[in-house]
Amino acid sequence: MELWFTEHHTEHVKFSMKVKEQLVNKQSDFQHIAVLDTEEFGRVLTLDGYLMVTEKDEFIYHDMIVHVPMATNLNIKKVLVIGAGDGGTIRELTRYPGIEHIDMVEIDPMVVETCKEYIPQTACSLEDKRVHIYYEDGLKFVRRMRDEYDLIIVDSTDPFGPGEGLFTKEFYGNCYNALNDKGILVNQHESTYYDEYVEAMKRAHQRIKETFAIAKVYQAHIPTYPSGHWLFGFASKHYDPEKDLDVEQWNALGIKTKYYNTKLHLGAFALPNYVKEQLSEYE
Amino acid sequence: MELWFTEHHTEHVKFSMKVKEQLVNKQSDFQHIAVLDTEEFGRVLTLDGYLMVTEKDEFIYHDMIVHVPMATNLNIKKVLVIGAGDGGTIRELTRYPGIEHIDMVEIDPMVVETCKEYIPQTACSLEDKRVHIYYEDGLKFVRRMRDEYDLIIVDSTDPFGPGEGLFTKEFYGNCYNALNDKGILVNQHESTYYDEYVEAMKRAHQRIKETFAIAKVYQAHIPTYPSGHWLFGFASKHYDPEKDLDVEQWNALGIKTKYYNTKLHLGAFALPNYVKEQLSEYE
Repeated sequence: MELWFTEHHTEHVKFSMKVKEQLVNKQSDFQHIAVLDTEEFGRVLTLDGYLMVTEKDEFIYHDMIVHVPMATNLNIKKVLVIGAGDGGTIRELTRYPGIEHIDMVEIDPMVVETCKEYIPQTACSLEDKRVHIYYEDGLKFVRRMRDEYDLIIVDSTDPFGPGEGLFTKEFYGNCYNALNDKGILVNQHESTYYDEYVEAMKRAHQRIKETFAIAKVYQAHIPTYPSGHWLFGFASKHYDPEKDLDVEQWNALGIKTKYYNTKLHLGAFALPNYVKEQLSEYE
Repeated sequence: MELWFTEHHTEHVKFSMKVKEQLVNKQSDFQHIAVLDTEEFGRVLTLDGYLMVTEKDEFIYHDMIVHVPMATNLNIKKVLVIGAGDGGTIRELTRYPGIEHIDMVEIDPMVVETCKEYIPQTACSLEDKRVHIYYEDGLKFVRRMRDEYDLIIVDSTDPFGPGEGLFTKEFYGNCYNALNDKGILVNQHESTYYDEYVEAMKRAHQRIKETFAIAKVYQAHIPTYPSGHWLFGFASKHYDPEKDLDVEQWNALGIKTKYYNTKLHLGAFALPNYVKEQLSEYE
């Protein structure tokens, strides 16, 4: 039997992967959840039909969303993670002995349960005793926090569906308040290659720039995301991810990574001209 | 009507684009040639069914194969280009007033004729008076040259079909001899994400390293190539593309680029750990 999962990257572009077996196919209170076992990418999580995580390339996304802020400030002790139900971001964070406390706020418990059962590669560290999981709306959670965190990671879905509120000015303002005076906010920032993503990406960047003293964008090669050219936002009240990168100290930690290294950390902020132009258009 | 062009990136991964119209569908002495007018990517050239060039993202490939060596040695005057029938590499080279002479060796005249007629976006500078086109086998052409060029660009198809010989040790040795004592060789270097490409890529790099004093690999985000993470090889008898990059002088030229800039030039050599490991495995 030929079974294929196809995602439309735009109305006119499709990306398809051969499926061995569909392992999960269910509806939560928030979204449709599926897990596919694929030939090329191992197990794959989809939400509302959109590819979220694959076993083959999740290391790229999780390396880049975690190690870039951590190598910029090695004194991070208290972290808030919003979304991230697959657990990959938590797995990378728990590799830092200096982190004392991680709050994870995920709206959909069924995503976490599903990943624990079917994608242990990412969900393997959710039982770490420093991790505190709250099943609630990240927007509401962050609104009641003041001066609390060294780092907030917004590991969200796309800016439509359940993740939509995580791309608003109000949300970024609440994150600002929830961070202490040296706090860092990192978020997944969509892409710029296909027109469908550009506007959301530009709007998000503009709103973050209006809120934080430092707001930069960095990139990674994530083959299973639309265009393969994915962006992350780095915003901070104090730290500059290029100037404050602590090469020696980070390497002294001995954290073995498959994608990230400190040279690549700096290279990731070297954006193509067309991306730089898009990011500056609202300025 | 729904008309889709599909390329298999691996046996288990497909990339598809919606086609407005097939403009060219013919067989040359060397390969099948098609031009498609697509909704998302504009006009697209395929050879033997493999996507070569799209109007939407050709600027990335051509920026990176030309401006990286040029910004490393701004005194380049004589260039040999092998392959490159679409003309995009020539277009970027002709923007440098310091270049005096370009030999282009393309095995298949029908590719050049087709691109001149259907993809003028890339083929627009082939009539430049510095450009000398030879319709012959690049392997044979380079074999009879000694100490002739400042730069050789191998803008080849994949290491199977007509382009196969352009990935051999003998060919790299002949390029070495055809270059003068400060000569640079740049080639398209495939990718590392899918297993199908890794071996050819590793083998090519190993052969180049055995031939040239300096051999580095750099990367770009090319959305329509398999995995979107594409590599180029930089080899040289003298110049180091990171240490010898002349930021001020290149920017003084005022060449406007949509992808390349001198910060990105350096960032492109910051490879992910898994790519670095693959490249060093044969060492």
